[in-house]
Amino acid sequence: MADLEFWFDFASPYAYLAAETIEPAAAEAGVRVIWKPFLLGPIFSEQGWTDSPFNLYPARGRYLWLDLQRETRRLGIAWRRPARFPFNSTLATKTATWIDTGFRLPAYCRAVFRAGFAERRDPATPTVIEECLRQAGLDRAPLDRALAEGGGERTRADVAAARQRDIFGAPSFVVNGELFWGNERLGAALERAWVD
Amino acid sequence: MADLEFWFDFASPYAYLAAETIEPAAAEAGVRVIWKPFLLGPIFSEQGWTDSPFNLYPARGRYLWLDLQRETRRLGIAWRRPARFPFNSTLATKTATWIDTGFRLPAYCRAVFRAGFAERRDPATPTVIEECLRQAGLDRAPLDRALAEGGGERTRADVAAARQRDIFGAPSFVVNGELFWGNERLGAALERAWVD
Repeated sequence: MADLEFWFDFASPYAYLAAETIEPAAAEAGVRVIWKPFLLGPIFSEQGWTDSPFNLYPARGRYLWLDLQRETRRLGIAWRRPARFPFNSTLATKTATWIDTGFRLPAYCRAVFRAGFAERRDPATPTVIEECLRQAGLDRAPLDRALAEGGGERTRADVAAARQRDIFGAPSFVVNGELFWGNERLGAALERAWVD
Repeated sequence: MADLEFWFDFASPYAYLAAETIEPAAAEAGVRVIWKPFLLGPIFSEQGWTDSPFNLYPARGRYLWLDLQRETRRLGIAWRRPARFPFNSTLATKTATWIDTGFRLPAYCRAVFRAGFAERRDPATPTVIEECLRQAGLDRAPLDRALAEGGGERTRADVAAARQRDIFGAPSFVVNGELFWGNERLGAALERAWVD
């Protein structure tokens, strides 16, 4: 039985769907999930993308919102299309690096996703992050550390670790170094974790 | 009950997976499938892509072949990675426009996909296309018409029809004008066709 790493950017709407569904699915398979927030921006930049691919390619963009409306309805997940997309996920991600792994980290991550994709609030705002920390039973210490640090060495290290795993999008799942991309591969990734 | 349009480029490996699985799934749902081969190249060009996105972005490319190996194994579909990718699908597509719709068109399409993705043959070659026609119980008349025509007006009309439906990738499924993109949305598209 191997652990399943769940890699995501807080600004990815499909990662939001994964965040809302992964724990029950993993529990059923008896697999432990390691939550790995990271920034996709630097990796997209290396691909020559200066914006979300959904903004760069109009037909893809129109499809995205249609598909998300259908999928969230099908999965029974709360959904409100964000006013601005993508929102800046740097502060949310840097704050996450100062939270100990354990059940509070997933709770914080889910709160950030819901703020961005169900409550139309902007996770780039410190007051929103503080509220997400509180919902996870945490004080604002991780936020203060994120605000005080400069570039964010831990965040940079996480991006490097994502790159090392050949990750190019989100959500991504990694089991013993093997990559699975996209929500639709969660089942296959869990199966791999179960047999490994 | 609505028909389901199945739009694909012969060079798309994920469309190959759809071509191998769509008819049993549609039959179970009682839905009729309209096969719509078209050329994705002109649409990719409009997105600024001069090559397959899997070649343009190396990490995506590495992932593609890994994922296809896993998926074909899971689905029990024959698979041999093509020597050259993407192959030129123009001749196969132009030939298809001269085949009457009916059961022979899907049979021809599946033969082309298998040549490209299971038999490591090049569907840009007239002898390969002739063999695919024969496998579908057809003579070489559609191939001769494709070779004789110039730019291919019917092919251009199909690309225009794809663009009109906001199609940006393959496989795509369209039900009463509503777009579903990717093999993983086939179930949702069939459900929509069933209730409409």
